[in-house]
Amino acid sequence: MKNYIKPDEWLILEEGFEPENNRVSESIFSIGNGKMGQRANFEEKYSGDSLQGSYIAGVYYPDKTRVGWWKNGYPEYFAKVPNATNWIGFNITINGIELDLATCKINHFSRELNMKEGYLKRKFEAVLPNNEIIQVQSTRFCSLAQDAIAAIEYKITPVSSTAAISVEAYLDGNIKNEDANYDELFWDEISQWAEGNKACVAVQTRKTLFDVATAMQFQAFVDDTQITAYPTPITLKKYAALKSDYSISKGQTLSLYKYVANLSSMDYDSDGIENMAISKAEKAAGIGFEALKKEQAAAWAAKWDESDITITGDVSAQQAIRFNIFQLNQTYSGNDARLNIGPKGFTGEKYGGSTYWDTEAYCLPFYQATASEEVARNLLIYRYNHLPKAIENAEKLGFKNGAALYPMVTMNGEECHNEWEITFEEIHRNGAIAYAIYDYVKYTGDKKYIADYGLEVLIGIARFWAQRITLSKDKQKFVMLGVTGPNEFENNVNNNWYTNKIACWCMAYCAQNCETQKLENFEEWQRISKAAEFDESELGTWKQIVANMYYPFDEKLNIFLQQDGFLDKEQVTVNNLLPSERPIVEHWSWDRILRSIFIKQADVLQGIYFFEDEFDLDSIKRHFDYYEPRTVHESSLSPCVHSILAAKIGDRKKAYEFYLRTARLDLDNYNNDTKDGLHITSMAGTWLTIVKGFAGMRVINDELTFTPFLPDEWKEFSFKVRFRNAVLKITVSKSETKIEQLSGDKVKVKIIENNGAKKGVVAH
Amino acid sequence: MKNYIKPDEWLILEEGFEPENNRVSESIFSIGNGKMGQRANFEEKYSGDSLQGSYIAGVYYPDKTRVGWWKNGYPEYFAKVPNATNWIGFNITINGIELDLATCKINHFSRELNMKEGYLKRKFEAVLPNNEIIQVQSTRFCSLAQDAIAAIEYKITPVSSTAAISVEAYLDGNIKNEDANYDELFWDEISQWAEGNKACVAVQTRKTLFDVATAMQFQAFVDDTQITAYPTPITLKKYAALKSDYSISKGQTLSLYKYVANLSSMDYDSDGIENMAISKAEKAAGIGFEALKKEQAAAWAAKWDESDITITGDVSAQQAIRFNIFQLNQTYSGNDARLNIGPKGFTGEKYGGSTYWDTEAYCLPFYQATASEEVARNLLIYRYNHLPKAIENAEKLGFKNGAALYPMVTMNGEECHNEWEITFEEIHRNGAIAYAIYDYVKYTGDKKYIADYGLEVLIGIARFWAQRITLSKDKQKFVMLGVTGPNEFENNVNNNWYTNKIACWCMAYCAQNCETQKLENFEEWQRISKAAEFDESELGTWKQIVANMYYPFDEKLNIFLQQDGFLDKEQVTVNNLLPSERPIVEHWSWDRILRSIFIKQADVLQGIYFFEDEFDLDSIKRHFDYYEPRTVHESSLSPCVHSILAAKIGDRKKAYEFYLRTARLDLDNYNNDTKDGLHITSMAGTWLTIVKGFAGMRVINDELTFTPFLPDEWKEFSFKVRFRNAVLKITVSKSETKIEQLSGDKVKVKIIENNGAKKGVVAH
Repeated sequence: MKNYIKPDEWLILEEGFEPENNRVSESIFSIGNGKMGQRANFEEKYSGDSLQGSYIAGVYYPDKTRVGWWKNGYPEYFAKVPNATNWIGFNITINGIELDLATCKINHFSRELNMKEGYLKRKFEAVLPNNEIIQVQSTRFCSLAQDAIAAIEYKITPVSSTAAISVEAYLDGNIKNEDANYDELFWDEISQWAEGNKACVAVQTRKTLFDVATAMQFQAFVDDTQITAYPTPITLKKYAALKSDYSISKGQTLSLYKYVANLSSMDYDSDGIENMAISKAEKAAGIGFEALKKEQAAAWAAKWDESDITITGDVSAQQAIRFNIFQLNQTYSGNDARLNIGPKGFTGEKYGGSTYWDTEAYCLPFYQATASEEVARNLLIYRYNHLPKAIENAEKLGFKNGAALYPMVTMNGEECHNEWEITFEEIHRNGAIAYAIYDYVKYTGDKKYIADYGLEVLIGIARFWAQRITLSKDKQKFVMLGVTGPNEFENNVNNNWYTNKIACWCMAYCAQNCETQKLENFEEWQRISKAAEFDESELGTWKQIVANMYYPFDEKLNIFLQQDGFLDKEQVTVNNLLPSERPIVEHWSWDRILRSIFIKQADVLQGIYFFEDEFDLDSIKRHFDYYEPRTVHESSLSPCVHSILAAKIGDRKKAYEFYLRTARLDLDNYNNDTKDGLHITSMAGTWLTIVKGFAGMRVINDELTFTPFLPDEWKEFSFKVRFRNAVLKITVSKSETKIEQLSGDKVKVKIIENNGAKKGVVAH
Repeated sequence: MKNYIKPDEWLILEEGFEPENNRVSESIFSIGNGKMGQRANFEEKYSGDSLQGSYIAGVYYPDKTRVGWWKNGYPEYFAKVPNATNWIGFNITINGIELDLATCKINHFSRELNMKEGYLKRKFEAVLPNNEIIQVQSTRFCSLAQDAIAAIEYKITPVSSTAAISVEAYLDGNIKNEDANYDELFWDEISQWAEGNKACVAVQTRKTLFDVATAMQFQAFVDDTQITAYPTPITLKKYAALKSDYSISKGQTLSLYKYVANLSSMDYDSDGIENMAISKAEKAAGIGFEALKKEQAAAWAAKWDESDITITGDVSAQQAIRFNIFQLNQTYSGNDARLNIGPKGFTGEKYGGSTYWDTEAYCLPFYQATASEEVARNLLIYRYNHLPKAIENAEKLGFKNGAALYPMVTMNGEECHNEWEITFEEIHRNGAIAYAIYDYVKYTGDKKYIADYGLEVLIGIARFWAQRITLSKDKQKFVMLGVTGPNEFENNVNNNWYTNKIACWCMAYCAQNCETQKLENFEEWQRISKAAEFDESELGTWKQIVANMYYPFDEKLNIFLQQDGFLDKEQVTVNNLLPSERPIVEHWSWDRILRSIFIKQADVLQGIYFFEDEFDLDSIKRHFDYYEPRTVHESSLSPCVHSILAAKIGDRKKAYEFYLRTARLDLDNYNNDTKDGLHITSMAGTWLTIVKGFAGMRVINDELTFTPFLPDEWKEFSFKVRFRNAVLKITVSKSETKIEQLSGDKVKVKIIENNGAKKGVVAH
């Protein structure tokens, strides 16, 4: 764990350059705007260790599956987010010597992510191998206001003497993915062009044929004087550059600007996409860097106004929660139902940048509460649009009659993942997708969504469960064999309680919605049931299964068991593990992990978190006290659920402890893997720990309720939520919980004490 | 299933060339001598579909592991048997047109494997694209008598007119493995040389640095006249050839000979290995083709004298059993404890040609009964020599104190396989390796083997089980969690009965041997226990586990259950499957297979086969009647066990039915995969069905016993076995069972009726 980020309320700050942290910093200081994103790679050449990464939302390459032993049913490909054209690059020489921080002595290096205004700034003084000293300051951002646009300001000041500075401002499509399965190139050439102060590179993904055009307009100033002479245009395969030479006196500053437009055929017609990009870059240059930067600050101010959480009395916690919110907003803006929230967002290649159940299980509540209804709705529509593919996917595995199995990992609705114990067995994901519909309707009150979209998805999912569950003659109960629950440290188990539970919940919820629609909305129901070729007998089947499902339970402990045979395991707890054995996933062989009792992430507790209403506090406490000491939290998605439940049962110490594990996961590189990219989806978990954990926000009977507590370490915390058409501000301090309604129709809000007593109502 | 092999008692015969069967025939007509082997590829060029394959025993290449998702504990490489220098090749042109059966019209094609005398013969008439007609007859063999030597005779007779025939007799080391994980070349160049009528190519495996030198002496005759002019030598990288041109009149025959020596640094000093190979090839040429062929016939006659099984009244069955015995003897000769029996022998690349538990579970009894004691003993010593690697392997997975886990797949004792559910969990293999020691000692009476080698292996294995088994507080019994049994259609199950059973048997057998040695052989015991750092308390631990082990059992069915939860599965039988669904491994997704009841191969029944003495006939019948209808036999190792048990319980019809499934598995390409190579290890299963099944051979209290029956379809069958130092011939006919002792000290043999009554017959 590298703990080198300086605490600050609004800034992420690195001072001094340590090459061994470079990949980590490249991840942490990433910028994005929901449509594109860029790791914090250097603009100038860097021959040291680096993961170059520029990503365009929705564009993917179907990388041929790599597998040791093929299992029937595996997908042919894994959709990877291709590293796209490098648009940040400047090749710079000072008196003929290349500027490369790996070969310079570096002084006063700092990297600063300004979360308030949404830009990345970097400063350093470099002593080149020829002893020339220069000062550099670069600033860049991906515009939230104009999501095709990015801009860079790059300032060079010779310190020691007049310098001959040569600059090649380039766009380079000759890039690779480090995680390519067979070292293939993902991009083919379309065109490259450079002329005047403009250049453009257009490339196309192989097989999927997405076009991406990247254009730039270049400007140079010496102090305040713009250089009007055109640079020399250079074009090579998938490469376009503008090269110029300057003589800069000691103390003068050469300021370079790149106004960049990144357009993809997701949004623009392929014909003329290059011209469109060039024209957009030109327009951005017309606006100018400072004006664009102001526009950016305004756009971020609006985001913060909705989604900020303030924490008084703990700068480190304040920085952390803002960092998480910042990255979530950089990743997904919710205006396009074809996009989703990749586990690494735009900050790395790993996991293909595709969609996981994380979206529904962890991210949805954040976007639901901090943005317009459309944003959350688009996340649901994404899955609705993939329903035909989910039905195909289920058919491939032997299911019939419109049963839908949503993929474990996907980009376009097709399954990408290829581990049988995950791909074919971690089917609880289907449950989270149904649960998200329930959660969305409960939170937003948008009941029309059920008839418009939700019910078709619910029927497909309910059908899947009804076929996947079988009758055990031996038990005279319904069972579900061969699954992997959320705890991926168990594979291919029977009767995972969480999966059994959510499966039955899905069937019951679907049945209830079918009946409601039939009763209250008969015309719509006719349309839906016809489209789904619904048979009335299905309702009966679902109810019969729900009524006769088997759940592993231990009478003595009075708890649900994670799965069949769970008590046959050696009953040890995490405190028996040596520090040298942790994380066990790095130190133990896989079989040892599987047969041990240790739990990777909330499993039974995940179910209790979802279906909290069905459990009394004693029961929640019993389950928490049994499972938590056996949980190693080797998934970034684990601590948040534990924090929320700890808050629920009044264990404030544990609630705060788990908050700390999630909040600074990436800033402190807790799992030693931030170099691969940030844990975007688990960042939503951090938001959840504050809003659902510390503030105890719930919706009960169409009413927003809170059961707040203030961690001892804090003086106060405050956040806003949208609820229905109202915006509320909640402030929890030592003395009181204040709820202000800032806009919208008047809503009733309840504050409930932890013991269940209603403390009263505030609002307005 | 292609059913094109003509029935014959001693020949495998293909008439007419069907390119779509070519890979299958290349496997079936393979030749080998335990030291090298060669698929039945054509000598002349063939541009059609073919799997070129020449293999040298013991030589391997560590191919970098290919895996989708790495699990801790996976090996870095998979030892592959590299396709070695092509020594059979002739490039031939007739009047300037290349001879290539893919571009010719072919008449009177036949391929014939003479199993009696151990050679491959091929004849055809080819109409070339230039309408030239030629007749070709080729004969080749790998010498059993001189295991470095192979020889080819290749005769060409122009039929239509005088032909200008150009011949390039070559050795070519520019070969690849089709199954290379990353398309890498496995061989580096050492040298190539051609001069006079000799040539040599020496190559070295990358990383493992095995040298292989392949030399040839070439001869040509026109009718009976030897051509004395030297051909033109050609050398290219890893390639050496001799090229000559002949003018052959219509009706004259050009006879070409290649005398080949294949030497590897497994057996020869690398320095001078080329010269040694050249000199051996020269010596073989001096002996001449016919004389070498006679020597080969004599060597095979000796093999057949020991291991033949004759069947009267069923040519197809006779051909099949001989084919199996022939291939087993081609694969392993037992004079080198560094070698073992790859599942494909020398007939294909698949599965890396390494060692599996097949050797101990299926092959050992064949070699034990049909060859000198040393042959079986060498199979055991192979594992003894790998004990340190097995201990290392167990350590890698977290076991301690000298616990040994033998690898699932290996060449040099290190684990190669990389599927967690197999590599880490199919640990029952350890049991078969211990069982083989028991079986060997029981059969041969070589009790000294225990002290000399066996006990150290048994202690390592017993220690592994003692650590792998844990106490279930819930059950108050010992359990074994997270295993894959012999039935690979179940992964990561708890308490697989077979594994629990053989594990406890191992500990009990080891404890008993420790005590015997201590009592009867104290000095040796001191040496062994010191070497193994044996602690007396270990005996107590083993006994405690054995006494308190949990076995899944169903009271109502009165049978042991394959694993925990087995009765929760849908209770259907194989006859419920549609023909279009079979084999299920090709038609069902893996998860569906796993959660279904269908069994790939004998699992509980495998245990009953091993520990038959512990079960009465009723119990065997109950288990057979329950499990057999649920078994799909999608492993070639399944039917033989079922056949033997069916014979045991007197179900002669089923015993014969299962015999048929194993006997002609490759000849009839039953599993549609013979193209990849033959199922060598399962061929031993065929022998078992006759000797242990139909003849009911067992060793009971140091006595050989038989419980024979004659399948209705046969008139008589007969085979020989070595038992201790005697050779016996057993003939089973309708009227009687005749046992003749052919040599050795007089032994007592019992014939026991199926009802248990001793019929009492003594040999001689």
